[in-house]
Amino acid sequence: MKSQIKTTFSNFFFEYETPRQVLVKNKRVAVVCRIIQMGVLAYIIGWVFMYEKGYQVVDTAIGSIFTKMKGVSFTNISKKERIWDVADYVFPEQGDSSFVVMTNYIVTVGQKQGKCAELPDGKNKCNSDADCDEGKYKRMGNGHMTGRCMNETSTCEIYSWCPVEDDRKIPDPPVLLTAENYTLFIKNSITFRQFNVVRSNLVESVNQSYINTCLYHPKTDPLCPIFRLGDIVERSGLNFSEIARVGGAIGVLIDWDCNLDLSIRHCKPKYEFYGLYGTGKNGDKEEKPSLGYNFRYAKYYVEDAVEKRTLMKVFGVRIDIIVHGRAGKFDIIPTLTAIGSGVGIFGVATVVCDMLLLYLVPKRDFYKNMKFKHTQILEEKGKRGHILTSRTPTLAAF
Amino acid sequence: MKSQIKTTFSNFFFEYETPRQVLVKNKRVAVVCRIIQMGVLAYIIGWVFMYEKGYQVVDTAIGSIFTKMKGVSFTNISKKERIWDVADYVFPEQGDSSFVVMTNYIVTVGQKQGKCAELPDGKNKCNSDADCDEGKYKRMGNGHMTGRCMNETSTCEIYSWCPVEDDRKIPDPPVLLTAENYTLFIKNSITFRQFNVVRSNLVESVNQSYINTCLYHPKTDPLCPIFRLGDIVERSGLNFSEIARVGGAIGVLIDWDCNLDLSIRHCKPKYEFYGLYGTGKNGDKEEKPSLGYNFRYAKYYVEDAVEKRTLMKVFGVRIDIIVHGRAGKFDIIPTLTAIGSGVGIFGVATVVCDMLLLYLVPKRDFYKNMKFKHTQILEEKGKRGHILTSRTPTLAAF
Amino acid sequence: MKSQIKTTFSNFFFEYETPRQVLVKNKRVAVVCRIIQMGVLAYIIGWVFMYEKGYQVVDTAIGSIFTKMKGVSFTNISKKERIWDVADYVFPEQGDSSFVVMTNYIVTVGQKQGKCAELPDGKNKCNSDADCDEGKYKRMGNGHMTGRCMNETSTCEIYSWCPVEDDRKIPDPPVLLTAENYTLFIKNSITFRQFNVVRSNLVESVNQSYINTCLYHPKTDPLCPIFRLGDIVERSGLNFSEIARVGGAIGVLIDWDCNLDLSIRHCKPKYEFYGLYGTGKNGDKEEKPSLGYNFRYAKYYVEDAVEKRTLMKVFGVRIDIIVHGRAGKFDIIPTLTAIGSGVGIFGVATVVCDMLLLYLVPKRDFYKNMKFKHTQILEEKGKRGHILTSRTPTLAAF
Repeated sequence: MKSQIKTTFSNFFFEYETPRQVLVKNKRVAVVCRIIQMGVLAYIIGWVFMYEKGYQVVDTAIGSIFTKMKGVSFTNISKKERIWDVADYVFPEQGDSSFVVMTNYIVTVGQKQGKCAELPDGKNKCNSDADCDEGKYKRMGNGHMTGRCMNETSTCEIYSWCPVEDDRKIPDPPVLLTAENYTLFIKNSITFRQFNVVRSNLVESVNQSYINTCLYHPKTDPLCPIFRLGDIVERSGLNFSEIARVGGAIGVLIDWDCNLDLSIRHCKPKYEFYGLYGTGKNGDKEEKPSLGYNFRYAKYYVEDAVEKRTLMKVFGVRIDIIVHGRAGKFDIIPTLTAIGSGVGIFGVATVVCDMLLLYLVPKRDFYKNMKFKHTQILEEKGKRGHILTSRTPTLAAF
Repeated sequence: MKSQIKTTFSNFFFEYETPRQVLVKNKRVAVVCRIIQMGVLAYIIGWVFMYEKGYQVVDTAIGSIFTKMKGVSFTNISKKERIWDVADYVFPEQGDSSFVVMTNYIVTVGQKQGKCAELPDGKNKCNSDADCDEGKYKRMGNGHMTGRCMNETSTCEIYSWCPVEDDRKIPDPPVLLTAENYTLFIKNSITFRQFNVVRSNLVESVNQSYINTCLYHPKTDPLCPIFRLGDIVERSGLNFSEIARVGGAIGVLIDWDCNLDLSIRHCKPKYEFYGLYGTGKNGDKEEKPSLGYNFRYAKYYVEDAVEKRTLMKVFGVRIDIIVHGRAGKFDIIPTLTAIGSGVGIFGVATVVCDMLLLYLVPKRDFYKNMKFKHTQILEEKGKRGHILTSRTPTLAAF
Repeated sequence: MKSQIKTTFSNFFFEYETPRQVLVKNKRVAVVCRIIQMGVLAYIIGWVFMYEKGYQVVDTAIGSIFTKMKGVSFTNISKKERIWDVADYVFPEQGDSSFVVMTNYIVTVGQKQGKCAELPDGKNKCNSDADCDEGKYKRMGNGHMTGRCMNETSTCEIYSWCPVEDDRKIPDPPVLLTAENYTLFIKNSITFRQFNVVRSNLVESVNQSYINTCLYHPKTDPLCPIFRLGDIVERSGLNFSEIARVGGAIGVLIDWDCNLDLSIRHCKPKYEFYGLYGTGKNGDKEEKPSLGYNFRYAKYYVEDAVEKRTLMKVFGVRIDIIVHGRAGKFDIIPTLTAIGSGVGIFGVATVVCDMLLLYLVPKRDFYKNMKFKHTQILEEKGKRGHILTSRTPTLAAF
């Protein structure tokens, strides 16, 4: 028993099995086969390894963004001059990755709680008090109905912030059309945790003096982190004056595609711009059910001990900054996995070649006999020549 | 030398090797083997290819969200009527993907900087001035202690925004219980960069007239982008009146699972709702250490040249809208990788079959002899018949 | 014909092919081979399966975050005492995952729209009215120039919010240095959709009484969700008093790495802190073009029917909380894919061994003859002995 284990063990270690193969000297099959195999090899090396970098392990970035707008607008509405600076036109104020730059607005000054007539915009008409259900609220209405129908406006009286905002006409041209010249400064920091790499969009070539004067341009200044608002909108395929009037949303994509096998200096951001919410540049003909971007915003104050508010309906450019980071670095696992898959595909090539050899070439029967050995016939022979077989087993193996 | 290279080269190109195989005519082994192989094949085709779509390359979406609440609430607290509209109850105002809808609040009107007594809520009690450490701040306190113990309240005097907010009792029922009827409109735009596909949740069948009247329902209106706040809360498994009182957080998931090999029209969003922060619907019995959702918010104003503020402790429904997008499209790389892996698994099947053949069937020794050729014996023979071998190499190969 | 199909079919089912192999009794080659094969096996089992958990399918988390700051600061500037509480120093107020804690500020009280002199900070100097282009706006300026050069300040007169903010000197030490002692409470909820698992950072061992008293410490309290602001900054490798003065950004990473094959109780968050925007702790010597973090913020009010505002230039610690969740669970697909790849790599090992055998060992020609069978010679023999071959095909197979 012991010696048997020993034999098995020594056999396992000192014996090595390798498949027996037929060398088929058939030019047609061989050439086709070699071409297939070289195609597979070229695919594995060229595509999987070189192009797709299958030997790299990939990590996606965790990003953080800080933004800062700069610029001032001046308006002169009904002889009232007014200046708008960053604190006035950016929402929210703290430099988030998603924010709105006001470009147009409808202001309703001095609203206070009370009763007044609903806006006569067609949907709120009434003929008698019966049309104004007391205590109810209409989906398109601005407040709770008191039950009275006002004669002057033919609309229900409501309890609301009065006077009610009249947003039937959007100012055209937009009030803050000069917003086009505002500049946006983006600071973006990304972390590839797996590789312990931290990187900022203020790369090596972007220093303080460059930042003071540069303006992003895809060709001449692709790394400048300062963008003109008008440029952002135009590059996303939208029209600034239209967007400025009714509002719109723009995506700014910061795309990092880093090969960390090279120097970290080559890991640079690329900026892309596109319109959001179906108003895209691809000229899609699909219906655009909901154009524009607006929201309401109130500034509260107390006047003569009464709480009042200034309601602003703000139209603006909403900017969503999105970071898309991806870094690859050589690693043994994906390399071996790619090789393993490649060898598997080689197996497929072999199967295809064998099909050719065994089913398509004229001398297929001959090759079949070369490739395959039938046990059946040998079994029969084995049965007849059993003594022989057991005595000279090596012969039976032929 | 030159001819040798030529021979090697021509051999490589015109010769093709294919493994020699034994055809084992053993019904039991063959049937078991074929079943295993067909199982593997079925797994590769059925599961990897059909179900998991292993032939597709996958991209995750970059999404952008804009939200808009609609609705008005009317309150009548101690005979003071008040209307609440969007500008009053949504934080932040600009339509972010994460926002809070106020449903309850504790208001402290007219706070100004000064000295007043700390709230007598048990934790801030004092018996003498010695208990009130001047200039110190208590973790649960509202301001800096002046060092005096106030007799009226038995609490320390503090320098703070006075009067101090009294949040010991949360209004019940919640002040803005009608928030249940507010509606939420969600605009969602996603981009699959790898496939250059932009898509909006306002899909083909959602047009302006539909939006004007529809309300989301998972069965009847699964694509309507307008949601009733009460429905969102109920569908997440929470109770609206409880959430409205103490606040809570709801996740709204917009799930895109697109097969871009089909028409883009089939790429549609699915909406899901769930409670966040351990108050989930799965009926988990784990302790819930921190229920509710609230934050403080101040409206500042100047009265008689003194800065004052109205402090609101806001309880509300926080809604986090999350986009989860995934699109697949046929690509040659994952297809070949899947095939390669499949061939590898086929190899495993062959190994299993060989085990059967060589170790389990009765005639295993016979099959072993069929399959394996020993070099040792032949080597010995080779040594003896060296001249023969070199003369007729093809014979030695048998 | 029918019988032919039947034969093919029965052949397919009752016959099974297995490769013929040579057992090479060559110690050197065998030992090298076995070592290579065992290396591959060890790699597949040890690395791919045990370490990288290649048998698991992986899902990334969808996370949601709610934050709450606590703490009060007291300032005494030019004999004006003032208290700062959460509603005063956190932006935005509603508990987002990204927020700013004010630590320093420059306040400009009582700005109103009007004409005043530009700030004399060097860049805005003028000698005569000609230097002040009427209606124009300078990139670094605060408003629209009226065309006059003011003698008193030697700067242009501008239409702006007056008086203009003077931010030439940042208060040092920072006004709210005590912000160091503020505490931050983080609630984080994650969902692994693929596994239907919801998890909160308030794990089993974190109950209400623990939360009331604990403070995060990486060693002693790694699960406490309450963080001291000063600790966060220090742990990110930054200096609090410097950051407090000019502002800075900190990333707080909540890292979930869960093995769902184990009990869910082992799925716990890990907190990590790092400085953002190139002011990192890795002691990078690269230029830091844009240190600090600040934004402007206005509180509007109406005084004597004139709109005024208090402008604050806020310096602060911006905290970005990022969730990085990853869970693995056993699944048959990745297991089989890993096995398939492993078998593929085994194939590579075999190729390497064959190279050894066929090109490096002394008796390589002998082994070549053992492994390969040439069809050419047999073909010639076949041609001569064609009748024989067709009569006894099994012999030709040898």
